[in-house]
Amino acid sequence: MKKIYLDYAATTPVKEEVVSCMMPYFESTDSHEAMVRKTSNDFMTLLHASEGEFLFTSGGTHSDNALIRALAYFQRSRGKGNEIITSTIEHPAVYKLLEQLENEGFKIIYIPVSRKGILDIEALYDAVCDKTALVTVMMINNELGTRQPIEAIGDFLKNKETLFHIDAVQALGSTNIDLNRLHVDAASFSAHKIYAPKGCGAIYIKNKTILTDCLDSFFNQLCDVYDNIPYIVGFGKALTLSHENYIESIKHRMKLKEKLIAGMLDLAVGIEVNGLPLDRESHPGIVNFFVPQMDGDSMVINYDFNGIAISSGSACSSGALSASHVMKAIGYDEQKAKKCIRMTIGDYTTLEDIERVIEVTEEMLKGIKYVE
Amino acid sequence: MKKIYLDYAATTPVKEEVVSCMMPYFESTDSHEAMVRKTSNDFMTLLHASEGEFLFTSGGTHSDNALIRALAYFQRSRGKGNEIITSTIEHPAVYKLLEQLENEGFKIIYIPVSRKGILDIEALYDAVCDKTALVTVMMINNELGTRQPIEAIGDFLKNKETLFHIDAVQALGSTNIDLNRLHVDAASFSAHKIYAPKGCGAIYIKNKTILTDCLDSFFNQLCDVYDNIPYIVGFGKALTLSHENYIESIKHRMKLKEKLIAGMLDLAVGIEVNGLPLDRESHPGIVNFFVPQMDGDSMVINYDFNGIAISSGSACSSGALSASHVMKAIGYDEQKAKKCIRMTIGDYTTLEDIERVIEVTEEMLKGIKYVE
Repeated sequence: MKKIYLDYAATTPVKEEVVSCMMPYFESTDSHEAMVRKTSNDFMTLLHASEGEFLFTSGGTHSDNALIRALAYFQRSRGKGNEIITSTIEHPAVYKLLEQLENEGFKIIYIPVSRKGILDIEALYDAVCDKTALVTVMMINNELGTRQPIEAIGDFLKNKETLFHIDAVQALGSTNIDLNRLHVDAASFSAHKIYAPKGCGAIYIKNKTILTDCLDSFFNQLCDVYDNIPYIVGFGKALTLSHENYIESIKHRMKLKEKLIAGMLDLAVGIEVNGLPLDRESHPGIVNFFVPQMDGDSMVINYDFNGIAISSGSACSSGALSASHVMKAIGYDEQKAKKCIRMTIGDYTTLEDIERVIEVTEEMLKGIKYVE
Repeated sequence: MKKIYLDYAATTPVKEEVVSCMMPYFESTDSHEAMVRKTSNDFMTLLHASEGEFLFTSGGTHSDNALIRALAYFQRSRGKGNEIITSTIEHPAVYKLLEQLENEGFKIIYIPVSRKGILDIEALYDAVCDKTALVTVMMINNELGTRQPIEAIGDFLKNKETLFHIDAVQALGSTNIDLNRLHVDAASFSAHKIYAPKGCGAIYIKNKTILTDCLDSFFNQLCDVYDNIPYIVGFGKALTLSHENYIESIKHRMKLKEKLIAGMLDLAVGIEVNGLPLDRESHPGIVNFFVPQMDGDSMVINYDFNGIAISSGSACSSGALSASHVMKAIGYDEQKAKKCIRMTIGDYTTLEDIERVIEVTEEMLKGIKYVE
């Protein structure tokens, strides 16, 4: 049985070209600072950052943790408030950190999202005040694939003293990121969403003054990680490849996504798509289905029996059986939230894969009917 | 010109067998929890740990930071004091963290070392009291290669409520580590000292109760890193290899170290060895020389011109021109401390390498004479 992988939003396989270009750096004991600098410059060029600098970390969680903590404390130390504004659909890693910061005296304000999973921009405008140290919002939601109004938030904050951080982990390689136009002060990235290995991330900070002031807080945590030259080089290669194949990859994924959605919606009454998967702004590969006939976790197991890997909810809470906070944020109750599944199409997904998934789903739903 | 690498204590090249066994895990998107479990069990077997568990981190600094912080707070939270005892020759990563903990209300007590670089055990016995939350001492010093009296400390603390952490980063692969006999509660390890890649470390905690209580503090930091399957598998392979080749490797390094010391001491009046490099307890590869004729940093540059990589002091403060805190701790003044160099012999070092290093040093010292 051919294995079908439809969980690219959780993690991607590492591309052969990425592994190849990492190889020479394992055998060498040189410090390769020049390669780190070159990779940082590649990031600057490809993500259109004219100022600022990229640092490398052990991954997206590490980037988020280090950045948000450093920026929050930096702001508080210079009297720029102790309130942090975020959305109700951020990654669990961000929430875990924000809870810690709340214990350390910060006030966290959660901005709701629409039924489709888009942050309520007016509510955010109302919440920002002179106590707002930091706004942190993800660029693309990892469960729904919806793109958040990063441009509007950036424009609104650009002449204020509030700093703006984006979690761009799911965005990288899947939407256009132009840091020069975005008015964001800081951004987090992860390698293993763009066909480079797990265990490497990146941090961008726009303002060099802030960078210098924050560097001390970073350094202790980054010391070892920054030195993982093969992974840093691999991340740079993966970013370059993702830019070279960008249009082709987006088209490929969107075409298959349309087929998948059409096929799934055709299978049974009541199946719905969450978010705005057909919107051109959304992640090209992520589709989130509501399937009233079955529980998401049962579906994941059933797909797995059939050699198909998908996800029932938030990628990082796998194993946890409580319903996704994102599904609750868009207005689903516990029961309905548990009937959602996420499929993510990637560069290696084929039309045959999609057809097989629809076929398996059809059989699965027939089984359900039969049992009834 | 053939390059000669004599800086294995800073970092080792990655062995081909290690890279080979990592390869399959890059292409796969499986979680490979079984491989992490297997590697953890390999660590348990090879380091003779009958209880406790190994967790993987992004490196030695990460292991030290996460462990010491978690243990210190764990102890304070259950009323077991707020004093931390350490030595004056720990790794800069540990000092940086201890400074932070001092700002957070812990009291740090520094135990001096002898002229040869061995912790003053009587001073430590005197310092321990019912306020001592934690003792943290490295097993083998990274600059001198001296082994610290871990056994004696462990025996002294075993029936007390004080926890005992060892930084075993330089010890791994270079001295016998029997966690069952050591009476240590926690230990830190790093992959890139034993021919596995930079960017992976390990944490050992003996007492499962402590582990559980500490896990929450770790989890946020470990979330991403723990998932770096290729590196974890590579670390396990490197540890297995280091055990298979252990006796051969120790003999090889000690033989070459004796040649190096004899050759160097023969070159000029006043050259001395620091620490106890000929002691069987010491690190088999590390030699630290005091060379009155030249500054250590000039020597490093001169060796580099001749294709020889060595280190002038602490591996992590490369670039910093201030004298090593370890050399000061053994009683050298600033000027004398700056005239020290560290050479480390590794598995790939040959007799020809050693002969060439002695030859180059001789020329270097002649040059000095000439200039005078």
